[in-house]
Amino acid sequence: MKSYLEVIKGIKPADEKAIQEAKAHNDCLIKPLGSLGKLETIAIKMAGITGKMKNNPAKRCSIVMVADNGICEEGVAGTPQDITLIQGMNMTKGICGMGVLSGYAGADIKVVDVGIMSDYNNDKVYNRKIKYGTDNFAKGPAMSREEAIRGIETGIDMVRIAVEEGYEILGIGEMGIGNTSSTSAVLMAFTRVSAEIAVGKGGGLTDEALLHKKGVITKALELNKPNAEDPIDVISKVGGLDIAGMAGCFLGAAYYRVPIVIDGVISALSALAAYKLNPNVKDFIFTSHRSKEPAYDIISKELGMEAMLDMDMRLGEGTGCTLAFPIIGAACAMLSNMATFEDIAYDHSYRIDIREEEK
Amino acid sequence: MKSYLEVIKGIKPADEKAIQEAKAHNDCLIKPLGSLGKLETIAIKMAGITGKMKNNPAKRCSIVMVADNGICEEGVAGTPQDITLIQGMNMTKGICGMGVLSGYAGADIKVVDVGIMSDYNNDKVYNRKIKYGTDNFAKGPAMSREEAIRGIETGIDMVRIAVEEGYEILGIGEMGIGNTSSTSAVLMAFTRVSAEIAVGKGGGLTDEALLHKKGVITKALELNKPNAEDPIDVISKVGGLDIAGMAGCFLGAAYYRVPIVIDGVISALSALAAYKLNPNVKDFIFTSHRSKEPAYDIISKELGMEAMLDMDMRLGEGTGCTLAFPIIGAACAMLSNMATFEDIAYDHSYRIDIREEEK
Repeated sequence: MKSYLEVIKGIKPADEKAIQEAKAHNDCLIKPLGSLGKLETIAIKMAGITGKMKNNPAKRCSIVMVADNGICEEGVAGTPQDITLIQGMNMTKGICGMGVLSGYAGADIKVVDVGIMSDYNNDKVYNRKIKYGTDNFAKGPAMSREEAIRGIETGIDMVRIAVEEGYEILGIGEMGIGNTSSTSAVLMAFTRVSAEIAVGKGGGLTDEALLHKKGVITKALELNKPNAEDPIDVISKVGGLDIAGMAGCFLGAAYYRVPIVIDGVISALSALAAYKLNPNVKDFIFTSHRSKEPAYDIISKELGMEAMLDMDMRLGEGTGCTLAFPIIGAACAMLSNMATFEDIAYDHSYRIDIREEEK
Repeated sequence: MKSYLEVIKGIKPADEKAIQEAKAHNDCLIKPLGSLGKLETIAIKMAGITGKMKNNPAKRCSIVMVADNGICEEGVAGTPQDITLIQGMNMTKGICGMGVLSGYAGADIKVVDVGIMSDYNNDKVYNRKIKYGTDNFAKGPAMSREEAIRGIETGIDMVRIAVEEGYEILGIGEMGIGNTSSTSAVLMAFTRVSAEIAVGKGGGLTDEALLHKKGVITKALELNKPNAEDPIDVISKVGGLDIAGMAGCFLGAAYYRVPIVIDGVISALSALAAYKLNPNVKDFIFTSHRSKEPAYDIISKELGMEAMLDMDMRLGEGTGCTLAFPIIGAACAMLSNMATFEDIAYDHSYRIDIREEEK
């Protein structure tokens, strides 16, 4: 497995020459300048990633990091922890939200156990378990620094596998009851925003339980004192194994130069962590939908990226990516296949009126 | 051709029984309640349209109404009027934005001439020309009441044709230089909002030209005095042939009970006009993207419908529909194919831990 330091040092920015060529070509297409909005910026960004102006990222795969969170002990999640395992397994059968939506999008799924708290029989899961769930970060660090690094390197390695298998675009998802708590905690450590605006109801909580969740996270940050300048310290102290794994995927995508799509708030936070480890990562990342979780907008602003879909979704699992895949594909088709003003300049075969006037 | 009155009177609301069945089934799917947001409301709405809980609207077609606008004489458009014809023709060749994006979405296009100001040689166009462009509504009505009705009936008839050909979902687009002016004028007549907030830059205008456009539209409304209670009066006096045709499509879709998708601001306005002729129309309409034109948000509020995509697009032609088709398809796949809690209740084959505990 590649070391995370080798990868972080090895990431290069997007191909500026390809970006400039794509921009110039885009401005010649038969439409008012800029009128296809984000489709244009997506297509140009894709050129920067692959180094080619024309792209067709048809072979799609989502990598879903599954892990349990010790913080659940504190009653911060509205769903039993058992569901992490159950949904992780369901994802390999195509019957949960992510399975069905991936099937519709023609996308494959790689389910990766980086920290499910129990064992299971399922050879479709990539068993890369680092530990049986994180420790409860209300009582001490969620994991050791070495475990966080192993999580990151696992993500990098999953991208290597996907790229070697020929996947041309990756989505990133997660499954882990309690992971909106770790997400808010990491975000608060990075940005120093208060629990009041960074903590939401996750899968579903009462107003009272939300208040409790905010208190637990605030106190846990006081206890663990993560170093905001050291993303790995933050992830290990108040993050999750899924977040470590996903941050590794974003780093890996930038290293192997393959486009990668954020799902909701947890993968967005992981993208932000990767961005803090090497800002060039941003050149390789696409958004999908705007999560209902309040932390999403804060992360979005930190990354300087806007979602393309506004679907009121908050399921996670990577479901938003499945909706973004065809939009990114459409953007690439636009740049590859639309005519230019030059192409149509001499084609007036249909113009009865003008030809008659010219007689 | 069916008369517009017969159609307006014949439109029935969505199938409430199918909606309730779909809602009940949706609440049994293995995800937190409501966590797939608009995908859930889309899938339930589809059930109401077709009367069946499970749908797969795979055969897709957009109807694009093409017409010229006499108001262009006043210098309200940044693009030469000639482009209406040129892009209308390009749309049949698959090389413009709409052609390429429809191709990518596996959707067909029916290009309908309801009022191009010139003749042409192109047997792929449905020639339903009502007149050679509208009259300049800064000087008098854009068209007669009878012409507006013919426009509406043309739209209804195009939907009949599409439904007879087996299309399961329709998109609606337009091409007509000057048509953001008629759109803003109709909206201002309907809602009495001022030009200041209802008029935008359309395909592209300088700040000075925008100010001029606002003045032209405000004066034209004073001159024509359209009756806000009579949508056909409004369309005929300050609307366009494309708007009449599209309003007819929305009425036709509701009459023939087929889902229909709004593109940007001009088709949204046409949907609003149809809604004013029979509010049941709304049960059959889906949105696509949030147009950059300021009138879009006002129309959206009037219709009580929110866009699902936020792409900064302002091309029109129906391009937004092509991005919405796969999202609507995904929503239907979700409701049709996801497992229920009951389905998975007895499937614990993978659970080593719990089985061991039970020993």
